[in-house]
Amino acid sequence: MTLVMINGEIVDSAAAKVSAWDRGLFFGDGIYEVIQAYVGKLWGFDQHFRRFQRSLREIEITDVDLNEVEGWINRAFSAAKMPDSLVYFHLTRGCGIRSNVPGEDLGRPQFLLYIKPAPDNRKYVAEGISVITYPDIRWKRCDIKSLNLLPNVMAARAAKKVGADEALFVDNGLITEGASSCFFAILGENLVTRPLGHEILPSVTRQAVLALAQKLGIQTVERPISVAESLQAEELFVSSSGREIRPIVNLDGHPLSNGKPGPKTLALIDTFLKHTRSGESFDDLVRDTRFELLPAQ
Amino acid sequence: MTLVMINGEIVDSAAAKVSAWDRGLFFGDGIYEVIQAYVGKLWGFDQHFRRFQRSLREIEITDVDLNEVEGWINRAFSAAKMPDSLVYFHLTRGCGIRSNVPGEDLGRPQFLLYIKPAPDNRKYVAEGISVITYPDIRWKRCDIKSLNLLPNVMAARAAKKVGADEALFVDNGLITEGASSCFFAILGENLVTRPLGHEILPSVTRQAVLALAQKLGIQTVERPISVAESLQAEELFVSSSGREIRPIVNLDGHPLSNGKPGPKTLALIDTFLKHTRSGESFDDLVRDTRFELLPAQ
Repeated sequence: MTLVMINGEIVDSAAAKVSAWDRGLFFGDGIYEVIQAYVGKLWGFDQHFRRFQRSLREIEITDVDLNEVEGWINRAFSAAKMPDSLVYFHLTRGCGIRSNVPGEDLGRPQFLLYIKPAPDNRKYVAEGISVITYPDIRWKRCDIKSLNLLPNVMAARAAKKVGADEALFVDNGLITEGASSCFFAILGENLVTRPLGHEILPSVTRQAVLALAQKLGIQTVERPISVAESLQAEELFVSSSGREIRPIVNLDGHPLSNGKPGPKTLALIDTFLKHTRSGESFDDLVRDTRFELLPAQ
Repeated sequence: MTLVMINGEIVDSAAAKVSAWDRGLFFGDGIYEVIQAYVGKLWGFDQHFRRFQRSLREIEITDVDLNEVEGWINRAFSAAKMPDSLVYFHLTRGCGIRSNVPGEDLGRPQFLLYIKPAPDNRKYVAEGISVITYPDIRWKRCDIKSLNLLPNVMAARAAKKVGADEALFVDNGLITEGASSCFFAILGENLVTRPLGHEILPSVTRQAVLALAQKLGIQTVERPISVAESLQAEELFVSSSGREIRPIVNLDGHPLSNGKPGPKTLALIDTFLKHTRSGESFDDLVRDTRFELLPAQ
């Protein structure tokens, strides 16, 4: 129940292959996106696609026909007939003899997409999740959504080993973001999250959560959050396209908010679910908010 | 004129393919090595293979039959009939549905190897190379030789744009290493290079160069080198398995050592070429030296 497309061709999922000379494999020399579809619509497609273009531009993958790529994504989504699904795609710089600097034989960028059913997040909402902290050993351009994800894998595996659902990267006592999610805290009455910058991904769900909070009358503040204050926070949660919003009830083994999802987090989730399941667009949601998706260049 | 082997099978080079579900492609979740062969021998094989094992261990790719992998490398090298060649190989964690934490469907690690003729470095030795500096935006575990090489690609492309052969990563005014090489300076009478640590790869040629210097009676010092003192250095050079030793004659547009390879660098290259082309082993070279290949854990 997975649809796979490679360079515009829908192929058999289990047998899907790419060139062994793909620079994605040798260098992680590519950019990816993950979009959740709700009730037949790619939610936040424009924001994801704009971020995709920005990441490509930052690593100077320029020889791309973006209209063609957008057409492929839409064609694959139609063919998949999965109205509620998760759509992954990436584009690498091309294929060629391995060399840091691509040679004359580079060829065109390589596109890979797959679509699978959306995850069921109800258990996580009902029970909350445990998270651990992990040293932020990543590179200094985490705003670029590249295929260099080994530290994220290492952090996520460390979390899994102790039964946690996610790892939060920590640099100098401050939480940057999750291994594959954005991090939020309710501190006092405010919703707090880290400002955009090179240390975190300009998350699309982050922007949605900030907009939802404003709709709910929750004051939002963008500043770094320390591990120490997280342990004292009223509520914590993470968000991402696939995870949606998951309440954190345990951090590094310390129970939080009485071990239960907190009221503001649950209110945000409720509003998020109503919004996404109604077929309302991302643009409708964020229209009146004052947050930018992408950090200043 | 390239031999390719995938999971122990020698395959047609141009048509070589890997599974689209390879974690190397999605995450760069794998480890690689590059070994130069001289006169029919894989020079420094044991050191490279030890480093390979160490990198695998650091990212916890454990389900590997290393004897089998070693057998594949030797079989491929025999089949290639290229006594002077460059041997690249990598091993990724496996294939499976994309998830930071590998699922039950992970399968076995995926091995890819190719062998191509050794590069001809004579021009670089005769003329020297130009290099640029580039911000060290890499992750904090550069001692692990992983497939997460996007910053190296970015730096190398920036160098190429201005006609330079290599980029030197700089962190806080100090040079860490090249995008795909180790960095050395002759400062006064001494050969200076950065100490091993998480910031640089434990380079095999680095150890060879230090051993050669000791044979030549050149005092060696391990300490970080700043950009400022590099501009005043008597001589600079980089080394790697493929590049061997290349004299630097221009740094960020500033001519160095009168724009010509310096005498100590040329003496080191001369000794290096005699050593490697004689078929003498790496172990013979480093036997009496006091340097360690791998940093303390």
